[in-house]
Amino acid sequence: MKKFINAPDDVVREALAGVAAAHADLRVDVSNQIVVRTDAPVAGKVGLVSGGGSGHEPLHGGFVGAGMLDAAAPGEIFTSPVPDQILAATKAVDGGAGVVHIVKNYTGDVLNFQMAAELALDDGVRVETVLVDDDVAVENSTWTAGRRGTGATLIVEKVAGAAAAEGQALEAVAGVGRRINESSASFAVALTACTTPAAGKPGFDLPDDEMEVGVGIHGEPGRRREKLLSAKEIVRIAYDAIQSAKPLQPADRVIVIVNGLGATPLIELYLLFGEVAAVLKDAGVEIVRNLVGNYVTSLDMAGMSVTVCRADDEILRLWDAPVRTPALRWGT
Amino acid sequence: MKKFINAPDDVVREALAGVAAAHADLRVDVSNQIVVRTDAPVAGKVGLVSGGGSGHEPLHGGFVGAGMLDAAAPGEIFTSPVPDQILAATKAVDGGAGVVHIVKNYTGDVLNFQMAAELALDDGVRVETVLVDDDVAVENSTWTAGRRGTGATLIVEKVAGAAAAEGQALEAVAGVGRRINESSASFAVALTACTTPAAGKPGFDLPDDEMEVGVGIHGEPGRRREKLLSAKEIVRIAYDAIQSAKPLQPADRVIVIVNGLGATPLIELYLLFGEVAAVLKDAGVEIVRNLVGNYVTSLDMAGMSVTVCRADDEILRLWDAPVRTPALRWGT
Repeated sequence: MKKFINAPDDVVREALAGVAAAHADLRVDVSNQIVVRTDAPVAGKVGLVSGGGSGHEPLHGGFVGAGMLDAAAPGEIFTSPVPDQILAATKAVDGGAGVVHIVKNYTGDVLNFQMAAELALDDGVRVETVLVDDDVAVENSTWTAGRRGTGATLIVEKVAGAAAAEGQALEAVAGVGRRINESSASFAVALTACTTPAAGKPGFDLPDDEMEVGVGIHGEPGRRREKLLSAKEIVRIAYDAIQSAKPLQPADRVIVIVNGLGATPLIELYLLFGEVAAVLKDAGVEIVRNLVGNYVTSLDMAGMSVTVCRADDEILRLWDAPVRTPALRWGT
Repeated sequence: MKKFINAPDDVVREALAGVAAAHADLRVDVSNQIVVRTDAPVAGKVGLVSGGGSGHEPLHGGFVGAGMLDAAAPGEIFTSPVPDQILAATKAVDGGAGVVHIVKNYTGDVLNFQMAAELALDDGVRVETVLVDDDVAVENSTWTAGRRGTGATLIVEKVAGAAAAEGQALEAVAGVGRRINESSASFAVALTACTTPAAGKPGFDLPDDEMEVGVGIHGEPGRRREKLLSAKEIVRIAYDAIQSAKPLQPADRVIVIVNGLGATPLIELYLLFGEVAAVLKDAGVEIVRNLVGNYVTSLDMAGMSVTVCRADDEILRLWDAPVRTPALRWGT
């Protein structure tokens, strides 16, 4: 294992210490693993909390800040945060208008966020939950009942974050988050496995000439292995999977994210985005916003995901609203 | 070789097609490999052009936009752009106030930018050149006479770009760029070699338990190989190298970039930043601005660089000025 770390057990806390040193806008409780906006709670504003296993950076800590999340609760690597941790984050951002939990659909995350929501309610904090399950590669997986939550999570966080920032009520903020999830589809392909610090070796073996199609963000299996194809062919596989699960129509307007899984260089991501743009143009679908880069990663996995989100004027207005976080920033 | 590409010879142009599809603010001449702000030339403003071999993305194309570069001329992978290409970029951004070339110190880049500057002068465009040679790892290398240009390039581009945007004259813009270079030092460590599409295999062999200390951004050798150390020890090596080449003093204020070389996950970069922050705190040096992420890369190399730039009020004012590019954006 080749990593810039000190000891496997210390990776998450030491990385959080780095986040704390880098970002004066964030209050980082390193020992309890909670990242909160320094100005939280904002009185009268719906709070937004997300979290999940670490190893997907910048998700979620990198999306904490004005116009997006109020707090993140990162677990150990590929391990759900515990209920008390989520509860502490929830109470830290409750400004009296309730809190939205944005939860990727993994069994551990779902259970622990649910327990935290119940504990919060006992303390008088109303919680609405937005479950994200945008990954159309598999219907169920080793880590989930139902589809997995992946790249669309950041769109949910951005758009719901903007809705909360402009003063929308709890149900409305959760509602627009759910609408993003329903309107989104993602599909990922891996060229290599990732290595967790604890395991010290790749999570699966993949021959030099093969790729994992429909892979998840924890190295969990996808649909199938097959021989490595060209970028154009890989994008076609992803597009076909998205089209059969959540069909796009001509004249649809979409937000597209071409996302690196951690070890894929930006030059390849832009090449892939060019292929995605060509396929969608042929389909009559208009890309109205896009991101190309590493946003929802899987440690050091070489791989990419494509996320497509159908967007109307309201969603685009909220997408374009100012945001100021470590990993996403505009308008401020 | 596992990459998301179609054919090795088409990588740069196809990636540029993706850049064109992603960024409406940029005018991309895919066949001539030039990336220009759509609103260039800006009358009366000093133009800024940089370039160099591709494979270092987002450098340089990702830094084209308001407040930073006016144009970039990306060569083939790890290959200098040709003089005609640089000349075309120079003329495209000349608003009558002259053009600054920001050139990383590699022999091919230096020669080709020099030739382009002479050709531009023949066409009546004054050019000042800022040579960047911040990498303190080696005094000379297989690719250079003198020190190599690496991570400080983006600080030069940001600060000189802000000076140009506020209407400073040619000599002043070049002057502040040179001042950044003189005030900056970088040092890099690689855990793996990178693989160019043309070569199809890693540029060097590095045993599973070794790292390349003082590596360059083309996989060129560094100072030495040694056994893999902890993040804390690696940061200490980088700090000692910087201190012996360009000593920092207590009470110095610095901009710090902890930069990934392409395949290193963000969680490791933040962990490294925490170590850098601890070392500088012990030295009485204050980190006043920072970036943590992939900014000056070396394709799919697992590795990191640390750049430290001593900054005064004027430099910080220019650093904080609005910038709107694909890879760096704030205040707009």
